[in-house]
Amino acid sequence: MIENNKPKIAISIGDLNGIGIEIAFKCHEEISKICQPIYCINNKMLKRAANELKIEIPEDFEIFKTKGEFDLKPGTVSKKSGKYSFNSFMDAINLANLKEVDAICTLPINKESWNKADIKYKGHTEVLRDYFGKHAIMMLGCSEMFVALFTEHIPLRKVAKKINEEDLTQFLIDFYNNVKSENIGVLGLNPHASDNGVLGDEEVQIFKAIKKANKHFEKNIFKGPLVPDTAFSPLSRKNFKYFVAMYHDQGLAPLKALYFEESINVSLNLPIIRTSVDHGTAFNIAYKNENINTQSYINAIKEAINLISMKK
Amino acid sequence: MIENNKPKIAISIGDLNGIGIEIAFKCHEEISKICQPIYCINNKMLKRAANELKIEIPEDFEIFKTKGEFDLKPGTVSKKSGKYSFNSFMDAINLANLKEVDAICTLPINKESWNKADIKYKGHTEVLRDYFGKHAIMMLGCSEMFVALFTEHIPLRKVAKKINEEDLTQFLIDFYNNVKSENIGVLGLNPHASDNGVLGDEEVQIFKAIKKANKHFEKNIFKGPLVPDTAFSPLSRKNFKYFVAMYHDQGLAPLKALYFEESINVSLNLPIIRTSVDHGTAFNIAYKNENINTQSYINAIKEAINLISMKK
Repeated sequence: MIENNKPKIAISIGDLNGIGIEIAFKCHEEISKICQPIYCINNKMLKRAANELKIEIPEDFEIFKTKGEFDLKPGTVSKKSGKYSFNSFMDAINLANLKEVDAICTLPINKESWNKADIKYKGHTEVLRDYFGKHAIMMLGCSEMFVALFTEHIPLRKVAKKINEEDLTQFLIDFYNNVKSENIGVLGLNPHASDNGVLGDEEVQIFKAIKKANKHFEKNIFKGPLVPDTAFSPLSRKNFKYFVAMYHDQGLAPLKALYFEESINVSLNLPIIRTSVDHGTAFNIAYKNENINTQSYINAIKEAINLISMKK
Repeated sequence: MIENNKPKIAISIGDLNGIGIEIAFKCHEEISKICQPIYCINNKMLKRAANELKIEIPEDFEIFKTKGEFDLKPGTVSKKSGKYSFNSFMDAINLANLKEVDAICTLPINKESWNKADIKYKGHTEVLRDYFGKHAIMMLGCSEMFVALFTEHIPLRKVAKKINEEDLTQFLIDFYNNVKSENIGVLGLNPHASDNGVLGDEEVQIFKAIKKANKHFEKNIFKGPLVPDTAFSPLSRKNFKYFVAMYHDQGLAPLKALYFEESINVSLNLPIIRTSVDHGTAFNIAYKNENINTQSYINAIKEAINLISMKK
């Protein structure tokens, strides 16, 4: 059967009080054309969500029965919903780890609900790092451009100290091994990439890391340090699809200015493939039959398929 | 005569080895419809540039005779050209200071040429601060959005220490007094605007400054601290036209990602009005009859006129 050739993707269902399940229903037909989705949710919870949404469950909606049961409270922070979304995510990870699926795609969880459920992690990426004991690389973007973050959720004042040749070289090597792009723009840290040392000196470390990583591959893959404020100008984006940003907002503010609705989140450098929507649970519009934007989810599925094909 | 009702704008001619003079010629007819430009350049230099460009000098090309004479060397860093561009700028400032003109608009200078000419300043804004002994506010943008920079050309590692309630409050008050927008978005410093103190704590100072500045005007003008990476998303840009960024690349990377060619530079909080193109001398294409983009210059002239009308 043709069906069997499609890559299998486990979908962790996210917080059931949020918009994730509605997105899953809405996009099922479309994504089923390009992959075989397996939704981590049991029959009872699936029916409750479908009833609440007044939607019929598609006949070919394949599930992996994540255990648990609770009353849906659309748009509400809830311990039980937090716990269930965590379990759904763990089931998806296990399926991928056992090679029952080729990748996982995650729908949004609610951090406060996880907190209420005494889950010690702040988000999906932390769970993955802990589970696999590996340093996942966080990359965000869409088909037009992707940005990998060298530092992530740390105060801005701590960023400069984290920039060092050794760690950045390893990061660049790992990043190339995952995305295999021959042309990667690496941003400087300071305004004007320091104007030759007048505005800071961290660019020296960045320059050395670029040189070392290029030497490692014996190819001129990494370019930079790029001047941060023009790195994402239209001309520069013609030169690069993949960027490495030194810190969270340096990469994500331009990305979200340009491609807010299309963007996805990808965890690289792990034994499994994981992509995710780049938005939250949107409690304010959950179960209201609002015109929910599904572009990020569709793109996350497509990128998972792309990464599966690159791995083969 | 109708002519006399148009605002007078002194144009400092920029580095004559660069693209500035070509832009001035190209746009003269268009800008003359909305203002009375007075170009700070003498007859000899004007003729040399026109000959080199094979362009006829428009009949109504009014000049203020900036002294000096040298051989043009298109696309070349030069002591003499640096000195002349500085003198042209100083003439423009003086004309504005004497109220002979209503505003000045600056064409690009070359920093290396200024350096060669032993001019101690790194750029136009520094000269203005020194001349007037006032803290000019640097604002960049276009009609779609403007970003004012609370800190500018300093290393990233020094930014966090500069964020304090007192200075920021004064900055916000000055900024409002210049742009008179009733709705100004003020960015946080840290990822997620610190997530309630989990990722840094400078947002406390920013929050207090916003509160104090709003109290000063007895109006809810300043909103924030905004989450930096979503501050420039399409939805957020519907809410705000004016933003205050805490540091250089926080504001300018998203601005240049979105509006690279249209953007201009404005010096606020000075006794005179000054706008500028937001690009350099482009030595690589100077005097080559290339298709030079004049959008930034046209927008700089328009914004000068806008600021003149606001002052009246």
